[in-house]
Amino acid sequence: MGKVRFGIVGMGNQGTHYANLFGDGKIKDAELTAVCDGSEARLADLKSAFPKLHCYLNPVSMMEDGKVDAIIVSTPHAFHTSIVKECLRRNLHVVCDKPAGVYAKEVREMNELAAKTPVKFTMMFNQRTNCIYKKMREMVLGGELGQLQRVAWVITDWFRTQAYYNARNWRATWKGEGGGVLINQCPHQLDLLQWVIGEMPKSVRAFCHYGKWHDIEVEDDVTAYFEYENGATGTFITTTGEAPGTNRFEISGSKGKLLCENDNLFFYKNERDALDVSKNSDKGFDIPEFEKIEVETDGENLQHAGVLSNFARAILGKEALWIDGAEGIKGVELMNAIMLSGWKDGQKVNIPVNEDEYLKILKQKQALSRVKTGVEEKVEDVSVTYKKKKS
Amino acid sequence: MGKVRFGIVGMGNQGTHYANLFGDGKIKDAELTAVCDGSEARLADLKSAFPKLHCYLNPVSMMEDGKVDAIIVSTPHAFHTSIVKECLRRNLHVVCDKPAGVYAKEVREMNELAAKTPVKFTMMFNQRTNCIYKKMREMVLGGELGQLQRVAWVITDWFRTQAYYNARNWRATWKGEGGGVLINQCPHQLDLLQWVIGEMPKSVRAFCHYGKWHDIEVEDDVTAYFEYENGATGTFITTTGEAPGTNRFEISGSKGKLLCENDNLFFYKNERDALDVSKNSDKGFDIPEFEKIEVETDGENLQHAGVLSNFARAILGKEALWIDGAEGIKGVELMNAIMLSGWKDGQKVNIPVNEDEYLKILKQKQALSRVKTGVEEKVEDVSVTYKKKKS
Repeated sequence: MGKVRFGIVGMGNQGTHYANLFGDGKIKDAELTAVCDGSEARLADLKSAFPKLHCYLNPVSMMEDGKVDAIIVSTPHAFHTSIVKECLRRNLHVVCDKPAGVYAKEVREMNELAAKTPVKFTMMFNQRTNCIYKKMREMVLGGELGQLQRVAWVITDWFRTQAYYNARNWRATWKGEGGGVLINQCPHQLDLLQWVIGEMPKSVRAFCHYGKWHDIEVEDDVTAYFEYENGATGTFITTTGEAPGTNRFEISGSKGKLLCENDNLFFYKNERDALDVSKNSDKGFDIPEFEKIEVETDGENLQHAGVLSNFARAILGKEALWIDGAEGIKGVELMNAIMLSGWKDGQKVNIPVNEDEYLKILKQKQALSRVKTGVEEKVEDVSVTYKKKKS
Repeated sequence: MGKVRFGIVGMGNQGTHYANLFGDGKIKDAELTAVCDGSEARLADLKSAFPKLHCYLNPVSMMEDGKVDAIIVSTPHAFHTSIVKECLRRNLHVVCDKPAGVYAKEVREMNELAAKTPVKFTMMFNQRTNCIYKKMREMVLGGELGQLQRVAWVITDWFRTQAYYNARNWRATWKGEGGGVLINQCPHQLDLLQWVIGEMPKSVRAFCHYGKWHDIEVEDDVTAYFEYENGATGTFITTTGEAPGTNRFEISGSKGKLLCENDNLFFYKNERDALDVSKNSDKGFDIPEFEKIEVETDGENLQHAGVLSNFARAILGKEALWIDGAEGIKGVELMNAIMLSGWKDGQKVNIPVNEDEYLKILKQKQALSRVKTGVEEKVEDVSVTYKKKKS
């Protein structure tokens, strides 16, 4: 195999972005040979712009037509696991867009299948390639923060208008998405939250508000509280209803505090371990001196193109795969735990979540889900979002 | 009356600070004529340093000796309401240190008595004189933020050592304090939280950890979640176990976001009301432009000396009293609501709290309270704290 031949399923905003990366030559050792979308008009547009592209209305047709070695699944997330499984069954390498799925049970089944196949399977966790988050993980896992005490991510800069929600019939519905801001906007943060810390919380209490700022049936405002195995606590606060929002990720430990805000990373490094001082000092108002350090990173931020290039090169045996696709379950599980606690009025939900209970309640909501009609779908201008969020 | 003659009850760290303000001539229209403390050794020290000072072991003796017109109650807070009431019964003007009391019921009774007396009664809410908080309140109540959407105060820079807790037998005990970080360190923030916003939350869910970072029986780590009448939410996070902590107070509204951090105040002012944009824009990724403004204040920060001078001048009829003492109940009620929810494993607690339920559980805890013995009390060096916190 010279170059890995890629197909994309789902040519909405995100699929189009991937196609552009191939078109711009950003993906090493790879070429885009096929696309699949449910809209004939969309396919006709693409075919006229790129005559060599193989176009399919049905993903299985693309999988079985022999024109691709690897597939990027970029559909609405309710279809992620089923399409990924179809790829795996046909020994096609597969990249799943975030989130891995809507509920942990379907992701677990997908992962079990992936474990039995010889192909490469990855998740589009492009934010894991961001040098800031990489550095944060390195520092936390390397023990530079000492004992973990608190994790706080306020990510309220996901402002969306009612027009955004009205533009897709699947958006912000229990049936079409299985959730709102948690499943659509936050999968990267929910993955990073556990990846940077190196562990999942052991329990969650959450307060979710449904259709609070928009005419939608799912959550658009969430405050979640976590407890970790060692007793550390955490909060995760998000909404699509505020502007200008805040994106502030702070991790506190006994040896110092790591703060990521406005694309800067600062480490407040204690001269002495604060818990040692607390325990052993003979002075009531003693406190460790600290130094505020702007943390240097390697500056790399390869994002989607980096993940796809690595994936192609891993298929060719040229380098190791960065992201094991099976890890997608963690963010889904965290999302499910927050959602389940929200549904149960803030009751404590332990992780791993009770997958059957989750699915049962989700199906009840889906059965009552409002169906949007008359939505005329167009590829939206997401440039504003990309510039600001590197989503 | 030429100058108002003040007495101080309780010559610990805080009482000593007040005495120094009088000694340094910082309190206008007033003089310190008497002090009261339970320690004979402490009184002997004060008497030798200030021979003209009248010294008392018993507060009622001071009240009845005719040497004072006004009293500052600066004892451990378990004694606040009873001593304030003794002053009110004798028509002595009274300044109560924060918090107003340990539980809302006793504060309500104190307030009812105060309402029937002709004397002046104030709370030492010195932080209300801070130009930053004054300005925040002015902006919120003036409608500059539009519709309130979120309130978040992270105040985790109350680091205390075990030695601090060991230095007083009443500290961090249910019997001696009735709580930990909420009642000892946070009364100013809990007062400001409602004063700046201009309203109390309608309900609270809280997660409190008792003796998490120290060998104490009360809470030293708290995460609280609020809901307000209009649907806005809030969080309040505090601990005495982290260093360096964070002090970040953010209020988000539809017209912008107000952020107080590191003694700076910024307003992120929206060009258009975000909720209007959300509702009426025809673009999915529309978002209001905003301007980040460093807010100018009048620069005044009169603190304890300002509150005491105003109090003296109000007694003399020279100016209006800034702070109605009856307002002390609000912070106590907020504290009680957080505490009660914490005791009940995060169950929702409505405000006003059920005062009888609160008192019943508190008394159960007090009955089992550990008594510390062998504590040799000394006035502690609080200069570090004052410099950093302007407490």
